[in-house]
Amino acid sequence: MNREEKLKASPEEIITEFKRLIELKAVLDTVFKTEFNRSIPFADLLFDRWDRAKILGFGEGSSIYDSSHVFGKVKVGKNTWIGPFTILDGSGDLSIGDNCSISAGVQIYSHDSVKWAISGGADDYDYTPTFIGNNCYIGPNTVIGKGVSLGDGCIVGVNSFVKKSFPEGSKIAGNPAKLI
Amino acid sequence: MNREEKLKASPEEIITEFKRLIELKAVLDTVFKTEFNRSIPFADLLFDRWDRAKILGFGEGSSIYDSSHVFGKVKVGKNTWIGPFTILDGSGDLSIGDNCSISAGVQIYSHDSVKWAISGGADDYDYTPTFIGNNCYIGPNTVIGKGVSLGDGCIVGVNSFVKKSFPEGSKIAGNPAKLI
Amino acid sequence: MNREEKLKASPEEIITEFKRLIELKAVLDTVFKTEFNRSIPFADLLFDRWDRAKILGFGEGSSIYDSSHVFGKVKVGKNTWIGPFTILDGSGDLSIGDNCSISAGVQIYSHDSVKWAISGGADDYDYTPTFIGNNCYIGPNTVIGKGVSLGDGCIVGVNSFVKKSFPEGSKIAGNPAKLI
Repeated sequence: MNREEKLKASPEEIITEFKRLIELKAVLDTVFKTEFNRSIPFADLLFDRWDRAKILGFGEGSSIYDSSHVFGKVKVGKNTWIGPFTILDGSGDLSIGDNCSISAGVQIYSHDSVKWAISGGADDYDYTPTFIGNNCYIGPNTVIGKGVSLGDGCIVGVNSFVKKSFPEGSKIAGNPAKLI
Repeated sequence: MNREEKLKASPEEIITEFKRLIELKAVLDTVFKTEFNRSIPFADLLFDRWDRAKILGFGEGSSIYDSSHVFGKVKVGKNTWIGPFTILDGSGDLSIGDNCSISAGVQIYSHDSVKWAISGGADDYDYTPTFIGNNCYIGPNTVIGKGVSLGDGCIVGVNSFVKKSFPEGSKIAGNPAKLI
Repeated sequence: MNREEKLKASPEEIITEFKRLIELKAVLDTVFKTEFNRSIPFADLLFDRWDRAKILGFGEGSSIYDSSHVFGKVKVGKNTWIGPFTILDGSGDLSIGDNCSISAGVQIYSHDSVKWAISGGADDYDYTPTFIGNNCYIGPNTVIGKGVSLGDGCIVGVNSFVKKSFPEGSKIAGNPAKLI
């Protein structure tokens, strides 16, 4: 679809805005291709993920993609990588340690809305603090429920759902996640 | 990476556009931090999720994030929350009731492209209408296949795949989802 | 929330930028509603997914949404559809064939960071090439690990995790994925 063609009936300044965004993206695309051999979403081209982590008060060397949603009180340590399409829900308090790998698509909660939904909106959300230690690897698309505590050095497999806590060094996976 | 530095060879208006976007994001970030204690993707800072729901003809009080994809004929009731990274596929007709919680990463289909892919593009997509009742909770990253019907007040667990229909009040989870 | 109201204390050019983006989105929303009966994220309204595929050197007729992340050396054939919220990781080399359906939320890796995380950042990432043949269907939210090879015409179920290779025509699902 030729968007410029379609925009022709729009005010001149809207067409100009569109063209500027297209050109800006093209320039940034080239920079990222040349320097990092990668192609990323427009918003990630624009905004630095280490800058965002700093603004959020995360530890030195941590980074977080534009597509990540961060709510409430979220504490993140140093050198932790937070991937795209993630949810860090600190509405009931969330703490994540140093050197963690929070893979793309991971959602970590400290609340849930189950009662809210099935009561037709009459009941409130439930909140409990969630804790992830240092040096943890959380696999892609894994969901960690409210109130979970994971000790240092845990490995959580892909597409898992973590409902209960595990001590340091645990290797877990599955739905619900169990020791493997 | 210092993007402004990299853009130096670009036309002046492109550099100015970039700076304006950075500044606009900073202002909106501050507003959301102060008012809602949250940090969200740039597009969600810009565009209101209740406004988008209205434009789509969804019921009063419903909301839908910018990252959600909506195709075809999708009907959504009142006070339903539709999270980020979601797909609402109404290419074969999709209806979602009131007061539902459609968690982040949920994909609800009324078509599939299995035959299309394995036939090398020769076969067409398959379509069947999909229905979600009122007061349903659909857990994060769950996928609901074409033709499924869920009655009122169903709870669907995290990371599930729902392939068949369930009556009202069902509590289901797994891949494929079963009563729990 | 009335964002324009909140922006009032900002420089005039920031407010103008905001208004232009709102108006540009409204125009493109209308175009997509009218022509394709769909409502998509702002960045996908702006940037054509076939154009992005071309820039990335993918085969004719292939397309890739703005939200997809592409790293390293990624080769994609003709007429392959790459959905939103996807990761194509070619840091250890990735090849995808013709006529594939790479569903929304799919992540295909040729590296992992497990050792990096549990060693506290001391160990390096691991890399192995990954290969997807022609005419493959990869279901929503499925993750394919590094080093996997899938022959032509494979069907991979929803929310799966593929850890080992399968020959052409395999129908697999689960975590880890097995023949079904």
